[in-house]
Amino acid sequence: MAGISFFSDMVQSITDRGRRLLAAGARSEPVQAETNIETLCDMLLSSRGEASGMALAAEVLQRWAQQDAAGQQDFVRMLHEQFGPDIAKLDKAIERYRSDRSSDAVIELHQAAEPRRQELVRRLNLAPKGTARLVEMRERLLAMKDATEPFRAVDADFAHLFGSWFNRGFLTLRPIDWSTPADILEKIIRYEAVHEIAGWEELRRRLAPADRRCFAFFHPRLADDPLIFVEVALTKAIPSAIADVLDVNRSPITAQDATTAVFYSISNCQDGLRGISFGNFLIKQVVEDLRRDLPGLKTFVTLSPVPGFAGWLARLRKATDASLDDQALKTLELLDDPSWADNPQKARVVEAVLLPLAARYFVKERATGRRPVDPVARFHLGNGARLERLNFLADRSAKAMRQSHGLMVNYLYKLDDIEANHEALAQHGEIAASPEVRKLAATASTDTSIGAPVRRRRTEMQKT
Amino acid sequence: MAGISFFSDMVQSITDRGRRLLAAGARSEPVQAETNIETLCDMLLSSRGEASGMALAAEVLQRWAQQDAAGQQDFVRMLHEQFGPDIAKLDKAIERYRSDRSSDAVIELHQAAEPRRQELVRRLNLAPKGTARLVEMRERLLAMKDATEPFRAVDADFAHLFGSWFNRGFLTLRPIDWSTPADILEKIIRYEAVHEIAGWEELRRRLAPADRRCFAFFHPRLADDPLIFVEVALTKAIPSAIADVLDVNRSPITAQDATTAVFYSISNCQDGLRGISFGNFLIKQVVEDLRRDLPGLKTFVTLSPVPGFAGWLARLRKATDASLDDQALKTLELLDDPSWADNPQKARVVEAVLLPLAARYFVKERATGRRPVDPVARFHLGNGARLERLNFLADRSAKAMRQSHGLMVNYLYKLDDIEANHEALAQHGEIAASPEVRKLAATASTDTSIGAPVRRRRTEMQKT
Amino acid sequence: MAGISFFSDMVQSITDRGRRLLAAGARSEPVQAETNIETLCDMLLSSRGEASGMALAAEVLQRWAQQDAAGQQDFVRMLHEQFGPDIAKLDKAIERYRSDRSSDAVIELHQAAEPRRQELVRRLNLAPKGTARLVEMRERLLAMKDATEPFRAVDADFAHLFGSWFNRGFLTLRPIDWSTPADILEKIIRYEAVHEIAGWEELRRRLAPADRRCFAFFHPRLADDPLIFVEVALTKAIPSAIADVLDVNRSPITAQDATTAVFYSISNCQDGLRGISFGNFLIKQVVEDLRRDLPGLKTFVTLSPVPGFAGWLARLRKATDASLDDQALKTLELLDDPSWADNPQKARVVEAVLLPLAARYFVKERATGRRPVDPVARFHLGNGARLERLNFLADRSAKAMRQSHGLMVNYLYKLDDIEANHEALAQHGEIAASPEVRKLAATASTDTSIGAPVRRRRTEMQKT
Amino acid sequence: MAGISFFSDMVQSITDRGRRLLAAGARSEPVQAETNIETLCDMLLSSRGEASGMALAAEVLQRWAQQDAAGQQDFVRMLHEQFGPDIAKLDKAIERYRSDRSSDAVIELHQAAEPRRQELVRRLNLAPKGTARLVEMRERLLAMKDATEPFRAVDADFAHLFGSWFNRGFLTLRPIDWSTPADILEKIIRYEAVHEIAGWEELRRRLAPADRRCFAFFHPRLADDPLIFVEVALTKAIPSAIADVLDVNRSPITAQDATTAVFYSISNCQDGLRGISFGNFLIKQVVEDLRRDLPGLKTFVTLSPVPGFAGWLARLRKATDASLDDQALKTLELLDDPSWADNPQKARVVEAVLLPLAARYFVKERATGRRPVDPVARFHLGNGARLERLNFLADRSAKAMRQSHGLMVNYLYKLDDIEANHEALAQHGEIAASPEVRKLAATASTDTSIGAPVRRRRTEMQKT
Repeated sequence: MAGISFFSDMVQSITDRGRRLLAAGARSEPVQAETNIETLCDMLLSSRGEASGMALAAEVLQRWAQQDAAGQQDFVRMLHEQFGPDIAKLDKAIERYRSDRSSDAVIELHQAAEPRRQELVRRLNLAPKGTARLVEMRERLLAMKDATEPFRAVDADFAHLFGSWFNRGFLTLRPIDWSTPADILEKIIRYEAVHEIAGWEELRRRLAPADRRCFAFFHPRLADDPLIFVEVALTKAIPSAIADVLDVNRSPITAQDATTAVFYSISNCQDGLRGISFGNFLIKQVVEDLRRDLPGLKTFVTLSPVPGFAGWLARLRKATDASLDDQALKTLELLDDPSWADNPQKARVVEAVLLPLAARYFVKERATGRRPVDPVARFHLGNGARLERLNFLADRSAKAMRQSHGLMVNYLYKLDDIEANHEALAQHGEIAASPEVRKLAATASTDTSIGAPVRRRRTEMQKT
Repeated sequence: MAGISFFSDMVQSITDRGRRLLAAGARSEPVQAETNIETLCDMLLSSRGEASGMALAAEVLQRWAQQDAAGQQDFVRMLHEQFGPDIAKLDKAIERYRSDRSSDAVIELHQAAEPRRQELVRRLNLAPKGTARLVEMRERLLAMKDATEPFRAVDADFAHLFGSWFNRGFLTLRPIDWSTPADILEKIIRYEAVHEIAGWEELRRRLAPADRRCFAFFHPRLADDPLIFVEVALTKAIPSAIADVLDVNRSPITAQDATTAVFYSISNCQDGLRGISFGNFLIKQVVEDLRRDLPGLKTFVTLSPVPGFAGWLARLRKATDASLDDQALKTLELLDDPSWADNPQKARVVEAVLLPLAARYFVKERATGRRPVDPVARFHLGNGARLERLNFLADRSAKAMRQSHGLMVNYLYKLDDIEANHEALAQHGEIAASPEVRKLAATASTDTSIGAPVRRRRTEMQKT
Repeated sequence: MAGISFFSDMVQSITDRGRRLLAAGARSEPVQAETNIETLCDMLLSSRGEASGMALAAEVLQRWAQQDAAGQQDFVRMLHEQFGPDIAKLDKAIERYRSDRSSDAVIELHQAAEPRRQELVRRLNLAPKGTARLVEMRERLLAMKDATEPFRAVDADFAHLFGSWFNRGFLTLRPIDWSTPADILEKIIRYEAVHEIAGWEELRRRLAPADRRCFAFFHPRLADDPLIFVEVALTKAIPSAIADVLDVNRSPITAQDATTAVFYSISNCQDGLRGISFGNFLIKQVVEDLRRDLPGLKTFVTLSPVPGFAGWLARLRKATDASLDDQALKTLELLDDPSWADNPQKARVVEAVLLPLAARYFVKERATGRRPVDPVARFHLGNGARLERLNFLADRSAKAMRQSHGLMVNYLYKLDDIEANHEALAQHGEIAASPEVRKLAATASTDTSIGAPVRRRRTEMQKT
Repeated sequence: MAGISFFSDMVQSITDRGRRLLAAGARSEPVQAETNIETLCDMLLSSRGEASGMALAAEVLQRWAQQDAAGQQDFVRMLHEQFGPDIAKLDKAIERYRSDRSSDAVIELHQAAEPRRQELVRRLNLAPKGTARLVEMRERLLAMKDATEPFRAVDADFAHLFGSWFNRGFLTLRPIDWSTPADILEKIIRYEAVHEIAGWEELRRRLAPADRRCFAFFHPRLADDPLIFVEVALTKAIPSAIADVLDVNRSPITAQDATTAVFYSISNCQDGLRGISFGNFLIKQVVEDLRRDLPGLKTFVTLSPVPGFAGWLARLRKATDASLDDQALKTLELLDDPSWADNPQKARVVEAVLLPLAARYFVKERATGRRPVDPVARFHLGNGARLERLNFLADRSAKAMRQSHGLMVNYLYKLDDIEANHEALAQHGEIAASPEVRKLAATASTDTSIGAPVRRRRTEMQKT
């Protein structure tokens, strides 16, 4: 404890001293309060950055943090305009490359084409907590939702650097349990995006019982802030409804008695790391970890939402190509009454029509590139899992009723089939599904694809 | 303990399973023993790398490790020939850039110019211990001492990635002492490059006494292998000879009584990280750390070798421009008798001539770019230190007598002057030196520069 | 993590194996389910305890845990009847001592007088989590509130052993903050006995801000269960009301700006360790720790309840010795209206009478042994603190209004005076109080002591 | 790191302040340099010990450490004379007990019979590093080899307290390997008592290879000083000679390939803890740990010295009761030539006579209490192991040739038999031995016991 605070104090001290130096420096021009953030960035990239890098980087990041939304947008534009590649150098490098095409010429070209802001970001990382601040900087950038060129260009540089820095080889898997520090648990509550955690008591129910597990990836420099985490229930059977998993009154089983590990929630934590994929690695590592720890576990399966289903179905109902017969269309009108699910009889009628359509949604529909339409399906099937079972009315929450008419599905992770499933999808667009699902899909009406590409939004980062 | 071996076993298991999958994969082509390393690299970059990245990366690294020197040279050539940029894409990107010069075009150009082996190296990093293996890979590459284009090109990619991965923001400073794990201490013995450590007893003398300190930078993924370390003696005065610091029979003082911290040895540890600079950050952090821990410390100084001095002096003596008068030349002939230093009278005569010349060597001579001639001076003066004192016959070891006629010097780190010193050197080529040294330099003969650039060799990585 | 669960699994395995052995042992009599707990205790003390100590101890503790209240009372009686000293041996040792009075005879006598259950308890400690179970065993024993001889005798043995095992030399001081594991924080919420913590949000307010600290003593074998903890507020002045300290809307100050450390809550955690004193050591260690960490802190003070005051005052009012004049008695009648404190005018009148009486309560009244009447005063004054200030209506909670009519006080810990204050009290019964308090006491009515000894209850373990 | 030194500095500061207080205390009598150690001990036991316990305890321990051997002997005598039980109280307690014999009377008697130095030692434990100093104090006491009553009495008190403090329930098992801190490894080199470790290179050979293990018990307050450790070799067969185990040139096997764990060295580390038994617990825990970690291990066995054999044989040869026939006596004369073992022919002749006698030594001879004659046999057979095999000329070191004519033996730890073996020995004096050893013993001459009790010496603490 003392050690940690000691260390961060120390780093603080270096920074403070550096900033004083900047302000009071003798022969070199003083950094006065007036010195603007652009000049500071220039200094950081210049030779002064070598002597006072930590201090300059800390100053830039602090000024940035103090700016309002407009100021932070200006900062992005400034990065774009002032810290792009050196155009003269780049033109020269292109000329050289066109004449000699040697490796040296390519290297020169690659270096000349690198925007100067990439080195700037690397130097900003020298500041204490620099990595966290930079991730936050990109989070703000993405939140600006500005798709114009300057924002796309600057984001591309962040994405490139973060892809390298947050390489899975640098991450650590850590279990999250009831003996995890509270400041990390607090973030688990905040970041959970699939099945909301209402407070500390609910968190305790998800972590403390003998048949619950949770694992997260951490980066060494974001030591108290998870990147992604998965919640796992150990059970004796594949669950068909989320209420069974989260039931407040259930009796926990011992971990030794469990045969099945259920991944019922995966949440990405850092908006600033959007597009950098951790989930695939996380699930496979956790499967291995659990197998070793608990040899009784034979089945590794998810209980996952189907966020794109209701939207697809609505489009299907409106489509004029008669891909649904009148009977089906009529039955589906029941869905328009919000209370349909409370009526067992109506529910039974809906089920008979809905499940085959859902099977078709997964197995036959395709987004661009022959990929599955559903974003969560894209993730798990892309990882090499198999669509195992459709669960009717498995989640009665308002959100799930809206997104998928309550449908949830299980994806099965069978280690020996993962690569073959993945390749079949990647090479031939084949979907891995259980015979039952496949049979259901066959009974559905003709499969004129109407699947629209799902936009990339925060939900995509919170898939199970 | 159990936790660590457990984890590495687990990672091992994922890898092994992956390799079995590779060998036995159903629909995807099996990876047989015949599959060559180039094909494996192709697979790792392809979509299969997504499903089986860790396993493929581990397989490539293991095959590489088993190859002999010739095989490893072929591997470098293969990386150069097969994993350069996609030339067609690059040409197209150039064409686009020449017509629209938008940011998007620059991004496309930058990406197209990036050799595919950079992504390959990032994916190799997925393997267990991947980072360590990749650092070793570059170490071997540098040891090939092949300056032809393929080797330069591949090395440039490693250097670029490592510069980003080993950014100081990702490193941790850790004290090294007598309670440090033996496997790390063993490496301190091996890596010490300035004043050899003869064995565990001598190591103990450098770490255990109350007036000794040692600090190292570590990367989180090379947790038991330091990147650079510095050895420090706490004293009551600036020492003028290394024998005083390392004296077996000295009586340690308490840390509280010390006024001076002497950095008497800095060693880089990883040849594979050549060119990535840690020393500057290390020294400044250690100065801050010690100041805070021991407020009695007022002076932070090195006791450093002068590896370029004897060579420079030899060239000076041979020069025909009469920059040395006959008297001086005659006196310097005494140096040609290896036992000169044992004769107090000769030593006194030599001292009177040698010291002014040494002052001139530091203060007036310049390498290209107005930088100091001496490599160690370049490091410390470039960090913003000041040349404080010249110490005649300060190191009587054979190596030091050969390199510098026994001369050592003290560089002073005064935090408040560091930035000004650095800028004066960077902007105006001014050397920071104490009045005494400056005066001595003034007495030396005229300063026709004859300093030759010192080649970059391992010694440059072991400077103090 | 893995390491820890691994280890506890391992210990579990030894135990389970041992129990199977007990059940299946070949030549030695099998331990069947019928074997009663007394026989198991006999076995544990016999030579079999050497071979199978961990297993036998675990079996005994598990059986004990499964018993109901009546069974656990029987267990205490059994310990008393069957595991007292060996009377024959004791008589023989007395005879020997009476005839030779050598040291050997004393040793023999001391050993013979030791109840055999002391060794039994030491052997029960071999079981996994044995220490925790034994502390719990004494907690249950004390909760039986049975003051008959068997219970007193068995408790005396626990108290003797725990006094040795929980010697302060074996304890570790650890800071408690918002990065402390949740399972420990959960206990802080549960154990807080002075100012209740309503939930995690309130806990966060007490731990996370820069001007809050908390410290606890831990025993190495109860690693996730604190023994005692103190909550500290860093302020710029001595607070006069608890509401100021716990105010939800206050703005935290930086720790560097604080001049005063306020110990506003100390809670003992383990009822099973009643009578073993940690608070004195805890406060002094925390004072030292904070002084070193934050040199700006000059004042170390408590904000403490006065649990005995209202009771004492009620007795005083009923006393017939005219120690209170009519005017005072009449004013004090205002206290009988529960809403008196809401009326500023009444409050002012009460204050003028109440504070001098409170000063008298502290400074002049004495319990047996010339000790202060108030239990919290006994603790802090006994530690060498000084009574610094009386705070009228400092705690408006129902509990405080009932116990002390809202009065709180500050005790000042001045390291240089602690020993003298302690000795003055211990040797001469002198109370250390500030001049202001002393003056107030002088104005109070005559001091016929009516202080009744306060019974030992749980509250005494929750003093500030 | 910082945290640790920070903490110990802090503790130091409390102590120093306390000592200044003692010297400068206002109203309480000042502790001057003249105050003798006996007075300080009195103060520590008095009420002042409550206020200034840490400081007083530190002062006493420091004064003690500065005394020479004579002074430390005086200190023991002082403890005996001045800090025995209060005789008046004891006599009173005896009187009461003789009249009422209640539990309360027994408690009073037990407390009155407790020498006051037991509480004194408990209070000395308050000092920083108190536990380590007290263990050292007893080590010195035992080294005085003074068996007179004062020394026996004081030692009995230390032994009683240490038995409680170092209860196995408070100890931690930790693996020792090549990543263990050097200051601990240094102690492994120093404490190894069975097969000397010549230096760091040899230590590395015993710890670093994949087929070597080492485990130690630690007490939380002696965190860098092991109490006992065992060295283990993982092999494919039960070894019959120590040279095979320690061979410098052997090729390590992987841990997974091993079938047998060989405990080839167990060393107690703390002379001050003599008589407190850890070895039994250590071996059993390590067996469990290894079984779990390496399921391929089926056999757990020692390779142990036989320190009492040569002495026993010499006595047997001198005995006049004709228990050895002339032929055997003549053969045994070969042993009197120190070089006998170098002559294969002589060795073969000796072997035929020696091994049956060795079998008899183990199986038929008995020390007092029907316990095995050999001290190492007493330890392992007492733990429930079985004598598995006699190894002729298994250790050719001078020490082993002198102690046992080179004989070593294997004791087998089979968990399922341990309790039965232990009980058979404890209850019926039966020795557990393999059929082979038993057969050999039957061929030996008649078994008139001549075994002399082996004295308790340091060697007994270094058994394997």
